[in-house]
Amino acid sequence: MKGKLFVVSGPSGVGKNTLLNTIIDRCKTVQYSVSATSRPIRPGEVDGKSYYFVSRARFEELIASDALLEYAEYVGNYYGTPLQPIREAIENGVDVVMDVEVVGALKIKKRLPDDAVLVFVTAPSFDVIRKRLIHRGDVAPGLMEERLERARWECSQAVNYDYIVVNDDITRASEELRAIMLAEKCKTMERIHLIKEELSCSTPQ
Amino acid sequence: MKGKLFVVSGPSGVGKNTLLNTIIDRCKTVQYSVSATSRPIRPGEVDGKSYYFVSRARFEELIASDALLEYAEYVGNYYGTPLQPIREAIENGVDVVMDVEVVGALKIKKRLPDDAVLVFVTAPSFDVIRKRLIHRGDVAPGLMEERLERARWECSQAVNYDYIVVNDDITRASEELRAIMLAEKCKTMERIHLIKEELSCSTPQ
Repeated sequence: MKGKLFVVSGPSGVGKNTLLNTIIDRCKTVQYSVSATSRPIRPGEVDGKSYYFVSRARFEELIASDALLEYAEYVGNYYGTPLQPIREAIENGVDVVMDVEVVGALKIKKRLPDDAVLVFVTAPSFDVIRKRLIHRGDVAPGLMEERLERARWECSQAVNYDYIVVNDDITRASEELRAIMLAEKCKTMERIHLIKEELSCSTPQ
Repeated sequence: MKGKLFVVSGPSGVGKNTLLNTIIDRCKTVQYSVSATSRPIRPGEVDGKSYYFVSRARFEELIASDALLEYAEYVGNYYGTPLQPIREAIENGVDVVMDVEVVGALKIKKRLPDDAVLVFVTAPSFDVIRKRLIHRGDVAPGLMEERLERARWECSQAVNYDYIVVNDDITRASEELRAIMLAEKCKTMERIHLIKEELSCSTPQ
């Protein structure tokens, strides 16, 4: 059975990382998608694990040869999703999960409509998102409204996703994400070949 | 959150009953759909639990008033699925499961395209179905080929279902059915109103 690509997006502070980590920890046949970047490697980072580190020229070759599912430039560096490792995993029956912002996620869905499943993760309210961002301490108070405005815009795009997970409780949210991943493998399109094969080899002569 | 109607079909001998019983036993917010019939009540049966027992005339009124999701006549008696109890359960957030043969299931999907989810349950092979039927001892040997021919026809209709569960292991099959039921509740169509409500009440003035 082929694997699938599960693309997870959602505002900062809704707990996407924790959610994806619970999935990776529990399921042996799930792997993270590793992004490519043209930014220099930092101490402690591992090529092929943290990112695929490539030169700017090489990254532009990847763009030109259509080898990236999506990419964006951020503070002078490129970041993108290499297609080949995802294709290989899917063909080998391995599910791939990735955390991509909304614009990239929608590009991926357009490129791999049958293989990519989009899951939007959100919190029960913007108030919860605000509190989580304050608690994490990674947003300066003056920038909070800007971050929440971005969260509002991201939520307005949720309608383009296949599923919505409201992370009010990590156990429940993780159970929902696992259910989505399993149910997607049970869809008729994924399994009808099993029945067709059985019908064709068992039809009475 | 609204409930959903999960319609399960599949050849005799694939373990549909066992599968549905594991779901009913584990989930408090799931109920069986009780069919209506015009056949006389038998000792041990309970009206409203085994079936809704109604007269032939009353059954024909139900047909005429479009109160049945689907119905069929079998050996001179009517059997059908009353719509009202299912509508009520769904509105009250209760999931309903039912075991209906293929023709009825497809009628239900046509009637309730947004609320009904069709799940086709099959065995790993016709050989397994044959063995299970022999083991159960409820098919005369001379009728076995007819039953298997019917199973083949039923399997040829699986393409019209939303999901396929291959019951080679009851624990795994039951996990898959539960995953399908949970994932269906996470679909964007079911949850987008939560985000829309939050967006409308939190938009900055």
